[in-house]
Amino acid sequence: MASNLRMQFKQCLSPPSLRSYFAEFISTFLFVFTAVGSAVSARMLTPDITSDASSLVATAVAQSFGLFAAVFIAADVSGGHVNPAVTFAFAIGGHIGVPSAIFYWTCQLLGSTLACLVLHFFSAGQVVPTTRIAVEMTGFGASVLEAVMTFMLVYTVHVAGDPRVGRGRKGLATTALGALVIGLVLGACVLAAGSLTGASMNPARSFGPAVVSGDFRNQAVYWAGPMIGAAVAALVHQNLVFPSAPEQTLPHESRHGSVETVVV
Amino acid sequence: MASNLRMQFKQCLSPPSLRSYFAEFISTFLFVFTAVGSAVSARMLTPDITSDASSLVATAVAQSFGLFAAVFIAADVSGGHVNPAVTFAFAIGGHIGVPSAIFYWTCQLLGSTLACLVLHFFSAGQVVPTTRIAVEMTGFGASVLEAVMTFMLVYTVHVAGDPRVGRGRKGLATTALGALVIGLVLGACVLAAGSLTGASMNPARSFGPAVVSGDFRNQAVYWAGPMIGAAVAALVHQNLVFPSAPEQTLPHESRHGSVETVVV
Amino acid sequence: MASNLRMQFKQCLSPPSLRSYFAEFISTFLFVFTAVGSAVSARMLTPDITSDASSLVATAVAQSFGLFAAVFIAADVSGGHVNPAVTFAFAIGGHIGVPSAIFYWTCQLLGSTLACLVLHFFSAGQVVPTTRIAVEMTGFGASVLEAVMTFMLVYTVHVAGDPRVGRGRKGLATTALGALVIGLVLGACVLAAGSLTGASMNPARSFGPAVVSGDFRNQAVYWAGPMIGAAVAALVHQNLVFPSAPEQTLPHESRHGSVETVVV
Amino acid sequence: MASNLRMQFKQCLSPPSLRSYFAEFISTFLFVFTAVGSAVSARMLTPDITSDASSLVATAVAQSFGLFAAVFIAADVSGGHVNPAVTFAFAIGGHIGVPSAIFYWTCQLLGSTLACLVLHFFSAGQVVPTTRIAVEMTGFGASVLEAVMTFMLVYTVHVAGDPRVGRGRKGLATTALGALVIGLVLGACVLAAGSLTGASMNPARSFGPAVVSGDFRNQAVYWAGPMIGAAVAALVHQNLVFPSAPEQTLPHESRHGSVETVVV
Repeated sequence: MASNLRMQFKQCLSPPSLRSYFAEFISTFLFVFTAVGSAVSARMLTPDITSDASSLVATAVAQSFGLFAAVFIAADVSGGHVNPAVTFAFAIGGHIGVPSAIFYWTCQLLGSTLACLVLHFFSAGQVVPTTRIAVEMTGFGASVLEAVMTFMLVYTVHVAGDPRVGRGRKGLATTALGALVIGLVLGACVLAAGSLTGASMNPARSFGPAVVSGDFRNQAVYWAGPMIGAAVAALVHQNLVFPSAPEQTLPHESRHGSVETVVV
Repeated sequence: MASNLRMQFKQCLSPPSLRSYFAEFISTFLFVFTAVGSAVSARMLTPDITSDASSLVATAVAQSFGLFAAVFIAADVSGGHVNPAVTFAFAIGGHIGVPSAIFYWTCQLLGSTLACLVLHFFSAGQVVPTTRIAVEMTGFGASVLEAVMTFMLVYTVHVAGDPRVGRGRKGLATTALGALVIGLVLGACVLAAGSLTGASMNPARSFGPAVVSGDFRNQAVYWAGPMIGAAVAALVHQNLVFPSAPEQTLPHESRHGSVETVVV
Repeated sequence: MASNLRMQFKQCLSPPSLRSYFAEFISTFLFVFTAVGSAVSARMLTPDITSDASSLVATAVAQSFGLFAAVFIAADVSGGHVNPAVTFAFAIGGHIGVPSAIFYWTCQLLGSTLACLVLHFFSAGQVVPTTRIAVEMTGFGASVLEAVMTFMLVYTVHVAGDPRVGRGRKGLATTALGALVIGLVLGACVLAAGSLTGASMNPARSFGPAVVSGDFRNQAVYWAGPMIGAAVAALVHQNLVFPSAPEQTLPHESRHGSVETVVV
Repeated sequence: MASNLRMQFKQCLSPPSLRSYFAEFISTFLFVFTAVGSAVSARMLTPDITSDASSLVATAVAQSFGLFAAVFIAADVSGGHVNPAVTFAFAIGGHIGVPSAIFYWTCQLLGSTLACLVLHFFSAGQVVPTTRIAVEMTGFGASVLEAVMTFMLVYTVHVAGDPRVGRGRKGLATTALGALVIGLVLGACVLAAGSLTGASMNPARSFGPAVVSGDFRNQAVYWAGPMIGAAVAALVHQNLVFPSAPEQTLPHESRHGSVETVVV
C-alpha cells in the first residue's frame, strides 16, 4: 500500500506527467485571460455603470472560443480539463488518480492567477472583475444554478470524450469537435446565467480574479456549486445513460502518461 | 395485432428505451435552460422595456450553441430530437413508433418545464418570459411563419441524419457536425423572426414557460405551426428530394434500442 | 450539334436534375429568409432610424449560420450553389452546362422572391428591406467592393469543393465543414462592408427584396459586381493557384445527376 | 555553401513556391479586409465617438470568421500562415527557410496594404482605422499583452498543424478544423484585449492600415510583441510540451513545394 502510493507519486513526476500539468497551466491561462479580459474590454467601452446585452454577448463569445482553443491545445497532452470541477469528475469516475488530480488543480489555479496578474498589471489600471452574483440572489440559489450549469458542462465533456461515441482512434477532427461542443455549451450557459451568478462553472475561473482583486466574497458558491454539479454529471453519465461498457476507459487516459492505477 | 401492441409497449420500457427518454429529458432541459435563461439575463441588462438588437443576438447565440450541445449529447442514445415536432416528423416517416414518440414527447415537455421551474425559483424573482408574437401579427400569420421555419429546421435535421450523406459509420465527428448545423440553422431562424413570432419552432420550448408563468396565450400557434411544418419537411425530404433509397432507415434507429417495428 | 443540345435539354429535365433545381429553390429560400428576416427583426428592436453595430452583428450571424445550413442541405443534391454568381463561376469553369445553369438561376431567383413574399405578408406590415449602398458611395465603388468580396467568397467555395483538398470520398463531415467555411466567410464580409454596400455578394439575395418592395435601384451593382468577382475567382483558382490537375472535376459534378457534357 | 544558397533561391522561384506566395497574398488580403472593414462598418453605425461593446463583438466575429477562411483557403498551398509572426515561428522551428520566409513576409505585407487601399478608395471617404493602444497604456505594457496573446495564437497554430494530433493524412476536415480553432482563438483574444492594445497579434494586420493612413505610431509594439510571443510559442511547443518526435516535420512542409532544406 505504501509502496503503491510511492509509485503513484513517482509517476506523478514523470516527464509526461509534468508535461500534462504544464499543458493545463497554459490552457487555463488562455481561458481565464479571454474570460476576464473580455469583461475588462467590454466595460471600457460602456462608461456608465450598467452594462448592456452586448457586453454579455462579448464575454460569452470570448469564453466559448477561448475554451474551445484551451481544451483543444491540451487535449492530447493532459485531456484538456482546464477546470478543477472537470478534474474532480474524472477523479470520481476513476479516470485520474488523486495525486495527479491535485497537481492538475494546482496548475489550473496558478494559470488562472497568472492570467489575472497579467491583465492587472498591463491593462491601464483597470480593476480585474470577479464573478459576481446578482444582488437579489441568495448564495444558495446561486450555488444551485452553478451546480445545474456545471452538470450540463461536465456531462457534455463526458459525452465528447467517450470512446463509444467516436468509435475509432482519436484524430485532430474528433478532438477539435469535442472541444468545440464543450466551448459552445459553456457560452450558452454564460448567456443564460451571466446576469444571475456570473456563470463561472469553474472554480479556477473565479479563484484567479479573487486573488488578484483581494475580493473573496461568494467563493464558496463557485467551489461548492461546480463540484457538486460535476460529481453528479459523472455519476449520471456512467451509471444511468451510458452504463453498457463495464471496462470503461476514457480516451484521455491512454493519451496522458500520468494516470496511475487507482488504489482500492 | 393486440400482442403486437403489447410487445411494442414492452419494448418501450426496456432499459435502452428508458435511457433514451432520460437523454431527451436532459437535452430538452439544457436547450430550454439556455433559451429562457438568455432571455432573462439579457432583459436584466436592459432596464427599459424596449430591448435592442443585442438581446436578440444574445438569445439567438445561446439557442444555437445550446441546441448544438443538446442534440450532440443525446444523439447516440435517443437520436437527439429535443423537440416534439422533430419526433412527430420521425413518427410520420416511420422511423419511430407511436408509443415511443409519446414517451419522447412527455420527457421533452417535462425537461422544458423543469428548466423553467429552476429559472423561476433561482433567478432573483425574474418572471420567466414566454414566446410571444408581435402585437401587430395575427395568430394565423405567426403560425405560418412558425411552420415555415420549422420546415427548414426539420428538413435540415433529416439531411444531417441521412445515412446517404455521410456514407460510413457514424462517429463523433459526423454526429457533432450534424448537431452543429441543426443548432446554427435554429439560431439563424431566431434572428430572422425573433421579433415577429418569438421564433419557437418547438412546442416544448414554448410549453415550459407557459406552464411556469401560467400564461397560455398563443399556445395553439406554437403547436400547430411547428407540427405542420415538421410533417411537410418529412414528406418533402422522403418523397421529393431524397427518394432514391426504398429501404430508407435513419441512422438513429439502429443506435437507440427502443424503436419498434411499426404496425401497418 | 443540334442533337447534342436536345440531349442536354433532355438531361436538364431528368428526375435528378429536377431534384437539384428544387434543392436550390429550398436552400435559396432558407438563406434569403434568414438574411432579410434578420434585418426586419433587428430593425423592429431599434425604433429610431439609425441602427447600431448590434444590428450588423445580428444580420451577419444570421447570414453566416443560414448560408452554412443552406449549402449543407443542398450539397449532395445540387452542389449547394445558393447564389447565381457561384453557378456562373462553375459554368465558366466548365463544371455545369449552360442549360442547367439557367434552371439553377431561375430557381434561385424564385426561392429568394418567395422568401421575401412570405416575410412581406406575415411580418406585421414591415417593409422588406433591400440591400442598399451608403449615400456617400458611387455605384462604381460599390460594384468594386461587391466584386472583391464575391471573389473571396467564390474562391473559398472552389477550395472547399476541390477534391484535392479532401482527398477521399466526400462524407457528411467534409460537406459540413466546407459549408461552414463558406457560411462564415460570408458573415465576415457582411461585417466588413454591411454599412457600405449592403454586402450582398449574391444577385438572388438582392433580387427578391427588389421585386417585393418594387425598388430596383442599384440592381446593376448587385449583378455586375458579384458576376465579375465570381468569374475572376474561378479563373484564378483554376489557372494560378491550383493548376496541377488537368482533368479537374469538381466533386459536385459526380454527385448531382444533371451535369451535361459541355459542348465545345 | 554558396551553391547551396543559390539552390535555395532557385527553389524560392519555382512554380509551387510562387503559388504559395500568391496564396499568402490572397489570404492576408481577405483577413485584413474583414478586420479593417468591420471596424469601418461598425464605426459608421455608431455616430458618436465612443463605440460600445457591440462594435467589439462585430470586429472580433469578423476577424474570427475571416481568419478561419483565410487559413483554410491557403492551407494546402502555403500552409496558411497569413501572419509574419507565424512565418517567423516556423522559420525558428526550421520548418521554412529564411529566403522563403522573406517572400512570405513581403506578400503578407502587400496583401494587407492592398486590402486597406481598396477600403480607403471605395468606402465613401472613411478613414482607415489603425490598431491603437488605450491612452492609459504604455508601449511596454501593450507589447507584453501582444506578446502574450500571440504566444497563445501561435501555440494553437502549432498544435493544429502538428501531425501527431491528427495521425492520418490531412484531408479537408482536418484542415478546416485546424483553421477553425486558429480563427476562433484569435476572436477570443480580440474580445479580451481589443480595448487595450487593438489586439493585432499580426504585424501585417497593423502595417497595412499604417501605410494607407500614414500613421505609424506604435508600429514597434505591433512588431516586437508578436514576434517575441511567436518565437517563445515555437520553442515551448517543440521543447517542453511536444518533444517526443525527434524527426519532427510539420505537415505544411510536405504540402507546399517551396520548403528548402535548412543550411546549418
